[in-house]
Amino acid sequence: MSNEVALIVGGGPGISASCARLFARNGIKVAIAARTPDKPVLATLEKDHGVRRFACNASEPEDVDRLFRSVATELGRPSLVVHNIDGRSPGIFRNPVTEADPALLAAVLKNSAFSAFLVAQQAARLMLENETAANGGKGTILFTNASAALKGFALSTAFAMACQAKTGLAQSMARELMPKGIHVAQVPIDAAIGFTQDDGSRAHRLAGTTVDDNMADPDRIAEVYLQLHRQHRSTWAFEIVLRPWLEKW
Amino acid sequence: MSNEVALIVGGGPGISASCARLFARNGIKVAIAARTPDKPVLATLEKDHGVRRFACNASEPEDVDRLFRSVATELGRPSLVVHNIDGRSPGIFRNPVTEADPALLAAVLKNSAFSAFLVAQQAARLMLENETAANGGKGTILFTNASAALKGFALSTAFAMACQAKTGLAQSMARELMPKGIHVAQVPIDAAIGFTQDDGSRAHRLAGTTVDDNMADPDRIAEVYLQLHRQHRSTWAFEIVLRPWLEKW
Amino acid sequence: MSNEVALIVGGGPGISASCARLFARNGIKVAIAARTPDKPVLATLEKDHGVRRFACNASEPEDVDRLFRSVATELGRPSLVVHNIDGRSPGIFRNPVTEADPALLAAVLKNSAFSAFLVAQQAARLMLENETAANGGKGTILFTNASAALKGFALSTAFAMACQAKTGLAQSMARELMPKGIHVAQVPIDAAIGFTQDDGSRAHRLAGTTVDDNMADPDRIAEVYLQLHRQHRSTWAFEIVLRPWLEKW
Amino acid sequence: MSNEVALIVGGGPGISASCARLFARNGIKVAIAARTPDKPVLATLEKDHGVRRFACNASEPEDVDRLFRSVATELGRPSLVVHNIDGRSPGIFRNPVTEADPALLAAVLKNSAFSAFLVAQQAARLMLENETAANGGKGTILFTNASAALKGFALSTAFAMACQAKTGLAQSMARELMPKGIHVAQVPIDAAIGFTQDDGSRAHRLAGTTVDDNMADPDRIAEVYLQLHRQHRSTWAFEIVLRPWLEKW
Repeated sequence: MSNEVALIVGGGPGISASCARLFARNGIKVAIAARTPDKPVLATLEKDHGVRRFACNASEPEDVDRLFRSVATELGRPSLVVHNIDGRSPGIFRNPVTEADPALLAAVLKNSAFSAFLVAQQAARLMLENETAANGGKGTILFTNASAALKGFALSTAFAMACQAKTGLAQSMARELMPKGIHVAQVPIDAAIGFTQDDGSRAHRLAGTTVDDNMADPDRIAEVYLQLHRQHRSTWAFEIVLRPWLEKW
Repeated sequence: MSNEVALIVGGGPGISASCARLFARNGIKVAIAARTPDKPVLATLEKDHGVRRFACNASEPEDVDRLFRSVATELGRPSLVVHNIDGRSPGIFRNPVTEADPALLAAVLKNSAFSAFLVAQQAARLMLENETAANGGKGTILFTNASAALKGFALSTAFAMACQAKTGLAQSMARELMPKGIHVAQVPIDAAIGFTQDDGSRAHRLAGTTVDDNMADPDRIAEVYLQLHRQHRSTWAFEIVLRPWLEKW
Repeated sequence: MSNEVALIVGGGPGISASCARLFARNGIKVAIAARTPDKPVLATLEKDHGVRRFACNASEPEDVDRLFRSVATELGRPSLVVHNIDGRSPGIFRNPVTEADPALLAAVLKNSAFSAFLVAQQAARLMLENETAANGGKGTILFTNASAALKGFALSTAFAMACQAKTGLAQSMARELMPKGIHVAQVPIDAAIGFTQDDGSRAHRLAGTTVDDNMADPDRIAEVYLQLHRQHRSTWAFEIVLRPWLEKW
Repeated sequence: MSNEVALIVGGGPGISASCARLFARNGIKVAIAARTPDKPVLATLEKDHGVRRFACNASEPEDVDRLFRSVATELGRPSLVVHNIDGRSPGIFRNPVTEADPALLAAVLKNSAFSAFLVAQQAARLMLENETAANGGKGTILFTNASAALKGFALSTAFAMACQAKTGLAQSMARELMPKGIHVAQVPIDAAIGFTQDDGSRAHRLAGTTVDDNMADPDRIAEVYLQLHRQHRSTWAFEIVLRPWLEKW
């Protein structure tokens, strides 16, 4: 096992779990942070892949500060940090702007964009102390994003604001930190993320499709994240939009 | 004088004052909202152009709600609302992300992007009740923005986030409200805004230039705002980026 | 009448005719160039508005060279040049790329993008000799474009290539010539252009609409062109996308 | 060795050679097409990696048609086609638009954008007959592009037009062909491409840098091309911009 440490912030069963498994299989020590780290999907990751779980409300500065100190102490300074919280919550889609709740909108901005800032700031502080690795970099900060990052859709004002604020964060940090050796990138997923149903089958969106290809497969998204982390600083990508072959765009 | 009412939120001596003067000269009743409505530049607008002043902290839902009720009662429902607060504040430029203050960043998001939402939401509510005007629309909502809306620059993470959140808001609202007759647009100014110095001359950024053309002239910006308001719904522009001829982009 | 001269290249009954009428009404001497300058719509423009007609195949260097020399000699050096040829032709829409005819594609590129270069190059040469006008500029070069300039749609490869080549031309020329005093801009029209039917009524695309607002009105597009020409160099727009209120985007 | 066949169009010592080596090492049969297939770099690829060389002027429809028939006959139908001709030629940079030679500009458009169309059209025709592979696709068409695809720079009008025409092609084909199982993508390289000097060292652009990281390393670009080819259709990227860590953008 290498000495590499990855920290994934956001503990869902989709991209976060897929990243945790893939990173662990590639010899990286993995920490995962979630509000409720004791949920079954994360317990399974610990049991099967040695993933370390941390409790953290990523929209609270003190929590994020404590998280990074704990990870650095217990596993080592991370060289790969993934922010995987997009702020989707009930009530923010199909929501006319005239009826939008300002308090909910403020919460979405805080949970998604503000937490991305907090996590990336702590990540940058630690990574700047890393030694330069074989790929010429000191570390990688990745933001999961959505197609709303590229295009603000109707009836989802809060989500559009949060996703585009996250893009502003990623762009600004990339321009500042890439010349200092930190690879900053975002991955807008222009699709619903597939998930495994209780019967073990994959959910599909389109009737009549018989393979899992009209939703983005989180295992394959995770591959792109690892590829981004392994890219040499000679050729860094800032943004990779992923969409299924049948998606309209 | 027509029965048209315009509300400008943000009370600076640049774009807001230029808009107030131009709108008033074109027969529109003008209200201007600012945290400190008693400052001299606004008093002059009232004296010279009949502009009505309102006190409002545009990042507070109750304040914004009260503002629109007051304007509707005292002047009539607005058909033109300009949000002209960009959240620039000391400490957010030339500010390494590792040293950025989370509290300041949260305040910038609130003052700029969140207030834009609050203002535009109230504007939309009132405008949907307007009758359709000669240009085929029920009203116009305009957001002043900056080049950071298009490109997140290094060392200004908070500003990049706020400007792009505002873009997300504008895009989402435009896609929702334009088919309902409300023209939503943003005007990113890719320049410093010119201002008049105490000796009456204009500030310049570039040595050796002898005319006022390396900064954006707020009087000319205001012309674009009025043109956007007058556009027929057959041909609505969503975004007009303005920059001086000598600006690099 | 001022001494201003405008040259419109492309002689259709939509944007070109609307521009000719509007420019003439604003005291500008107008020349219009078309392959077949003797068609009725152009004869009417001459009769009603004094527009001068010139024969020109705008995709032939010699023709374009001769055109500008003729216009300069007969009317004076233009300070406003509009390229209004978009290369639409039968067979380039709903055309699978596997069935596209290379010769047709080459012709579309030549008629649209290459002719835009030829026209803009000659325009730039003459305008650089102009004196600086009241708006601080030496002249304005405008390109009509389409939504394919922003997004290459399926089944229309030739059109996507031509429109985006034209965007590349406009961007490159704008960055080079704006600091020399020439305002270069493009206006992508994200709509069908309305036209007047034989019975005098306007064509509509959407059933059930009773006003002319689901197609772009060329008279209103022409207003934007004149506004762009009048913009002061303190605040130049490079691109204004126009779309009707009901258009999806 | 698999039965996979790759065709690389463009025979330079940079990306084309790197792709040929990497694809061959991964068990893919590789064909490379160039105007002068007998140059040493290609002879070496044949000798060391079994790469098959084909003579082709990729801007001539008949040549491109013959190329694909020869490759299909001799190696099999390709499932990976790379168009790697960007049309750079002497005289198109630092070239004021007023002095640009129309004939040279037409040649650049033909050599770069038109050849990209010819190659991609033939590739699509053959790939549509392929069986669906393990990654869910029938094949991959990749276009090398440059930063001018994203931004038309001053003093390089011909290059801006050609690069953006190629983007239009790639977008239109992607929207048409991805739902048919063909992965279409472009890779704009925002950098000079590194190359090996006669003394075996790598060229550098920036004084004082001691590692090869201020130019894009073609071996690492080739990795991204292979990753794109291997992506599952559940998560296809259309565009990956690659730039070195020290590049301004």
